[in-house]
Amino acid sequence: MDNKFPGKDISDSDLKDKFPLAAKKFTNHYSKFKVCGIEFGGKKIPVMAGPNMVENLSMIRKTATSVKKSGASFLRGGAYKPLTFPYRSKKYFETREEGVHWLSIVKKEIKIPVITEILDVRDIDHVCKVTDIIQIGSRNMQNYPLLTECAKTMKPIMIKRHYGASLRDWLGAAEYVLFEGNKKVMLCERGVSVTHTHRSTSRFLLDLQVVPAIKEISHLPVIVDPSHATFWRPWVKDMTLASIASGADGIMLEVHPDPENSAVDPLQPISFRSFSKLMNQMKKVAKSIGRKI
Amino acid sequence: MDNKFPGKDISDSDLKDKFPLAAKKFTNHYSKFKVCGIEFGGKKIPVMAGPNMVENLSMIRKTATSVKKSGASFLRGGAYKPLTFPYRSKKYFETREEGVHWLSIVKKEIKIPVITEILDVRDIDHVCKVTDIIQIGSRNMQNYPLLTECAKTMKPIMIKRHYGASLRDWLGAAEYVLFEGNKKVMLCERGVSVTHTHRSTSRFLLDLQVVPAIKEISHLPVIVDPSHATFWRPWVKDMTLASIASGADGIMLEVHPDPENSAVDPLQPISFRSFSKLMNQMKKVAKSIGRKI
Amino acid sequence: MDNKFPGKDISDSDLKDKFPLAAKKFTNHYSKFKVCGIEFGGKKIPVMAGPNMVENLSMIRKTATSVKKSGASFLRGGAYKPLTFPYRSKKYFETREEGVHWLSIVKKEIKIPVITEILDVRDIDHVCKVTDIIQIGSRNMQNYPLLTECAKTMKPIMIKRHYGASLRDWLGAAEYVLFEGNKKVMLCERGVSVTHTHRSTSRFLLDLQVVPAIKEISHLPVIVDPSHATFWRPWVKDMTLASIASGADGIMLEVHPDPENSAVDPLQPISFRSFSKLMNQMKKVAKSIGRKI
Amino acid sequence: MDNKFPGKDISDSDLKDKFPLAAKKFTNHYSKFKVCGIEFGGKKIPVMAGPNMVENLSMIRKTATSVKKSGASFLRGGAYKPLTFPYRSKKYFETREEGVHWLSIVKKEIKIPVITEILDVRDIDHVCKVTDIIQIGSRNMQNYPLLTECAKTMKPIMIKRHYGASLRDWLGAAEYVLFEGNKKVMLCERGVSVTHTHRSTSRFLLDLQVVPAIKEISHLPVIVDPSHATFWRPWVKDMTLASIASGADGIMLEVHPDPENSAVDPLQPISFRSFSKLMNQMKKVAKSIGRKI
Repeated sequence: MDNKFPGKDISDSDLKDKFPLAAKKFTNHYSKFKVCGIEFGGKKIPVMAGPNMVENLSMIRKTATSVKKSGASFLRGGAYKPLTFPYRSKKYFETREEGVHWLSIVKKEIKIPVITEILDVRDIDHVCKVTDIIQIGSRNMQNYPLLTECAKTMKPIMIKRHYGASLRDWLGAAEYVLFEGNKKVMLCERGVSVTHTHRSTSRFLLDLQVVPAIKEISHLPVIVDPSHATFWRPWVKDMTLASIASGADGIMLEVHPDPENSAVDPLQPISFRSFSKLMNQMKKVAKSIGRKI
Repeated sequence: MDNKFPGKDISDSDLKDKFPLAAKKFTNHYSKFKVCGIEFGGKKIPVMAGPNMVENLSMIRKTATSVKKSGASFLRGGAYKPLTFPYRSKKYFETREEGVHWLSIVKKEIKIPVITEILDVRDIDHVCKVTDIIQIGSRNMQNYPLLTECAKTMKPIMIKRHYGASLRDWLGAAEYVLFEGNKKVMLCERGVSVTHTHRSTSRFLLDLQVVPAIKEISHLPVIVDPSHATFWRPWVKDMTLASIASGADGIMLEVHPDPENSAVDPLQPISFRSFSKLMNQMKKVAKSIGRKI
Repeated sequence: MDNKFPGKDISDSDLKDKFPLAAKKFTNHYSKFKVCGIEFGGKKIPVMAGPNMVENLSMIRKTATSVKKSGASFLRGGAYKPLTFPYRSKKYFETREEGVHWLSIVKKEIKIPVITEILDVRDIDHVCKVTDIIQIGSRNMQNYPLLTECAKTMKPIMIKRHYGASLRDWLGAAEYVLFEGNKKVMLCERGVSVTHTHRSTSRFLLDLQVVPAIKEISHLPVIVDPSHATFWRPWVKDMTLASIASGADGIMLEVHPDPENSAVDPLQPISFRSFSKLMNQMKKVAKSIGRKI
Repeated sequence: MDNKFPGKDISDSDLKDKFPLAAKKFTNHYSKFKVCGIEFGGKKIPVMAGPNMVENLSMIRKTATSVKKSGASFLRGGAYKPLTFPYRSKKYFETREEGVHWLSIVKKEIKIPVITEILDVRDIDHVCKVTDIIQIGSRNMQNYPLLTECAKTMKPIMIKRHYGASLRDWLGAAEYVLFEGNKKVMLCERGVSVTHTHRSTSRFLLDLQVVPAIKEISHLPVIVDPSHATFWRPWVKDMTLASIASGADGIMLEVHPDPENSAVDPLQPISFRSFSKLMNQMKKVAKSIGRKI
């Protein structure tokens, strides 16, 4: 049947030769693994929530407290961010070592596991003392030395898809991590750079079709991040519920105590209140397809 | 807030000047209208199901009987199809007048309303004697004389989005119909021509983000057709459930008595049995978001 | 060699079964044919120039005089235009029958052949009394009844590529014309809907790579229209010269007596003076690759 | 005028605030600088030629000799390559330190300056002893620590555009280098990930429109690499000539002693003989637009 489709980009021999570790071995072979006691790839759909940037101790403490209360399993928050321009201002900055330190304080205080991004091999040791999952950002999806060095830590790794990357490229990145013997790999869809909707240009289109595409050929859990894809607060709810219905194994959401004054991308985070409400809606949709939040 | 986003393709003045009829007048202004007693734009999500092509009387009769039993509100089926190449064969053809005739027989027998495509102004009279909704196919979305002439019949019209069209282009097409005083207009998303997934090239990516995008600026009901978008049977279920969760006001699905031997696009239709099962899943997801099938 | 490339969208059997008439029969098989004494597909590269819209008799007369003097082989100008929205104003309109009439006057007076668009089968007879080449616009590339009826007139036909169409779709459209026994078919590239440059959203990217792609598999002449692709006057010159260097067999350009006040798309036409200067530059580039304007 | 275009992704204030260093200061402000005595940004268009991978000493020596004789200004060749999958074989590998060593030998012997890629901050010292220009590959265009560390060496830097990157993203990368006080920055277009042509899926479309787009807002020289964009030997010639006609300030080409047996991407390199012939054609096209090779 497959041979009838002319434009197939991943062949059966690719699955054997290029992605032997990322490819599914047989029907219904899906990876399950636990991070801080929370299972990925199972019936439950973990939620990772928090700000784009760990701006200061107070805001990350408030956020951690609130999202945990609403049912999030992980606190997300960047201390290192690949910002598009080199200029920093009061409203546009990274908190780096300080941000990681604040995450460590909050993690202990609030007792919530943490996911944060690493974008430089020289930060691995330092950040790995705190983070429970390493996030590889879209812009570093094809930074192979970074993938390899992060893999060697044996920490769980979530690889965000580059917005210009095919599934082939993305699985190639996962294969680099698996190749080092690190089996705790998650893929995270966050929108592709195509602009047919009415907010456009440098922005993204959430590719939910890639969820069943991955499930067809790979055993890796798939997370979806609707915040970065939509880049627009009012659409986050609908895309989150759609992500769950599409079969996503996890959800990453941007939540901020004062969304409109977020240091980075203020059009996309949702408030504590919206997040709490959305968690309830997510639970219902998850239940309707036989899963749970 | 809007002004902060540089790449916005539809401005506030566009809404007034270019889409005065398609644009929402105020918050929560959404069109509702009935076709053969079935409401569009309301709480209920009508399902349109059937084959890509009305191949013969027997197959369309079987399909109508089966999809009605499973809960479909409309029978879909093309007699006129914009086929990419001019060559017809035993396996690749249109049934034209005959197909429309078979639809008329089945419609009476099984008592199920019908939606079928018109692609030539010279066929309007003839097809409108049978069809309850006129389908404008993707490839004719910008065929403005066709839109105008179809609009004048005052039949309900469903406009499929061209796979290369922005929301701006698409709403322009809807405005042509509304301009003639025909208010029963539906939009139907069926995938855009972007190929980052692993089946690609001449194929499509389902844009569910466009559902909340439309709801933000327009009052028109949005239908989603996951069959044409995915072009791949195994992904139809997940994308259908995701469409409902995204806020779609209707679902169009390709269902065929013998999917693998469908005359056109045999990789995409689902069987009667799969459809029946999927209807049950759709009902659960619809219920979880406060709607129903 | 071909088999090594996984994502090939047009197979060798497609060339035989789907495009038997559009496909090249053997190496260096390229169609040549004359329109009003001007050869397409040969060493010479005909230039078609004029306004997007035939706005009035005076402007089209001036334009015809000027572009002929500068060396254009054909006068282009639309009387029927597929406008994105149904609203007409002083600045945004079609001139329809009147426009065609003005073209007929100018054609005789200035003695320059004409190319104009047809977008409705009901206009074929009328427009064909005047036009020397029928233009099928991008938005009607997949309007197969229109292609078939236009083909039957045996007039030369130029098919503009839809901005979302693959080469496969486009050659399918050409095959419809060839299938009617009409061999005078030209393809015209005018930009695809992808927006990585800094003017974007509803706008286009000129695909010059498609020129050698067509030459690899088809014998049909390829025209390039840089005006619609760039949608931006300052880029037209560079893209025109690049089109010639890429191997284009013809150039279509928008030229207007008062570009900034053009009725449609005022950002793209160039002035008489710019056109005259560009013709000289085009001649030099054409000569450098062994062709001529 | 600008304000009339709704989807403009780079605003005038962006030019001041986000790209103060990459933006043009006034009309006709273009950077010129010399590398090993060869000027970039001037009338002359330097050509960089060589294999994708420095496979062994013999092949790089032969290539350097041949491309220099044909008129290339720089030898290109990768020792470090971001390969999509972690598996190395006889036909798919990197030569790393050894490759850099071979480049150093050939550079002295043949007296030709060298450009090679760096993809890991830990390789900067080592590679900079040999290379005359640092190449930042597409996949590392947004690896900001790498950009910053490479910038600090004050070596000239050529930044290849990521195939999913907008001009905005790309200029952001250049700004990181300029921000460190390193003014010798070149941009290199090598195709965007859009697939409307007949070889597709994981492959690219050469965006020549971006050449005048860059010249409109930035003073940086623009190089074009048609080999990676087309990924297909037979199209390289036409796209190279088109690149020159579009206004490119430099050309990068893949040339290999035995193209069909190239270790990486064997479908794209051209032979010594084809390169020599192409150089003559390039000279003619360059001359026709008032430049030279």
